[in-house]
Amino acid sequence: MENRKKVEVCHTPSLYHQYEKENQIVVAIDVLRATSAMCTAFDNGVEKIIPVSTIEEAKAYKAKGYIVAAERKGEMVEGFDLGNSPFGYTDGKYKGETIVITTTNGTRAINMAKDADTVVIGSLLNLDYLSDWLIKQNKDVLLLASGWKDRFCLEDTICAGAFVDNLIKSTKFTCDEDSSIAAKYLYLSAKDNYMAFLKASSHRRRLKALDLNKDIKYCLTPNQTNVIPVLKGDALELI
Amino acid sequence: MENRKKVEVCHTPSLYHQYEKENQIVVAIDVLRATSAMCTAFDNGVEKIIPVSTIEEAKAYKAKGYIVAAERKGEMVEGFDLGNSPFGYTDGKYKGETIVITTTNGTRAINMAKDADTVVIGSLLNLDYLSDWLIKQNKDVLLLASGWKDRFCLEDTICAGAFVDNLIKSTKFTCDEDSSIAAKYLYLSAKDNYMAFLKASSHRRRLKALDLNKDIKYCLTPNQTNVIPVLKGDALELI
Repeated sequence: MENRKKVEVCHTPSLYHQYEKENQIVVAIDVLRATSAMCTAFDNGVEKIIPVSTIEEAKAYKAKGYIVAAERKGEMVEGFDLGNSPFGYTDGKYKGETIVITTTNGTRAINMAKDADTVVIGSLLNLDYLSDWLIKQNKDVLLLASGWKDRFCLEDTICAGAFVDNLIKSTKFTCDEDSSIAAKYLYLSAKDNYMAFLKASSHRRRLKALDLNKDIKYCLTPNQTNVIPVLKGDALELI
Repeated sequence: MENRKKVEVCHTPSLYHQYEKENQIVVAIDVLRATSAMCTAFDNGVEKIIPVSTIEEAKAYKAKGYIVAAERKGEMVEGFDLGNSPFGYTDGKYKGETIVITTTNGTRAINMAKDADTVVIGSLLNLDYLSDWLIKQNKDVLLLASGWKDRFCLEDTICAGAFVDNLIKSTKFTCDEDSSIAAKYLYLSAKDNYMAFLKASSHRRRLKALDLNKDIKYCLTPNQTNVIPVLKGDALELI
């Protein structure tokens, strides 16, 4: 029991300062859609992803000739190559390429976590594959939900809860922090029908208005990719 | 539908700045044990409660001859008259009196909410009585969970979820904000057995170590008081 590692959930980036980062693996989660798109991109052969926080940084990369994805308010920002949809990466068009990405919440959370020992990318799409890896690392895990503009968001917390559930079941982890217990119970309430559970969620409403139901359904279907993107310096690469 | 009022849950005081306060009723919640003790005190005839945030303020009141309750880390602070236990107020000893209270989390949350139009005190002890009153006010409601030292805490969020559930059932309220949906689902998971649900929660563990199981059981038993403490200036009074 005493050798078990700790798994915690940070519900929004605004609470990130409350958590220890030393000797932790931070899992950045933005289910709709940044980290889902990243998992899909790597699964389709993308070589590197450079997550940047601002449109200005994205523009600077674009000027240097990079392929750049930029999303704000759920839509692709004019003048860039891609938005935030996982389906932008599924045709193998970007195999071997480096892509720069900026999104409303996800890339901000990833960059916020740069002070941690290790930052990996989590989504429902790599749930079991990443969980198995986390279980083998023998380190504390902090699941960082990206939220929506620093506010709590349901789908990221549910995804964090799915990781908590997997890690606890391995018996290698303890979960005795309230936010992690809450995330786990929310996951257990939601897991049999994510779409129905999230029907009232603010972000899904936001995306539904943009006719992104296909994206949402895909992002909420676990275990479609076997990838673990990890942050090395300024770029994400496969582990 | 469009005339329905909004009910939202703020999971910890650190996120309070993200919410609008104008034309809102803020319900301050600290189940273990500040707002439960306050409901019990009023139910036992206490006339006024002055919530103060610091031990220094409490000492200043004590020096002026006030009866002062002070709790830190779950225990009564030396040199004061009372701690944070609801059972300190049940013998009618303080009937008609004014009590000054400072606690680790609850009184801080109450004072933080002072900028709101109306601040009332909520706990499981006045759940249905306060819900009925809130339903009649025709105003937006913000449930402020006190948390533990600015961190998310399970029992306050569950209590907030119980209020959300009551307000939605009245059909006078909509709940479409993610943190409120989460609180409601946590309440629905917990409501048939709070004690079992909260057995792993950090605060309950903290209090259990202090042998406060009687207090916990009492605070987790809904609808034992018919009181609505409201903040008027610096003091709480019955509405």
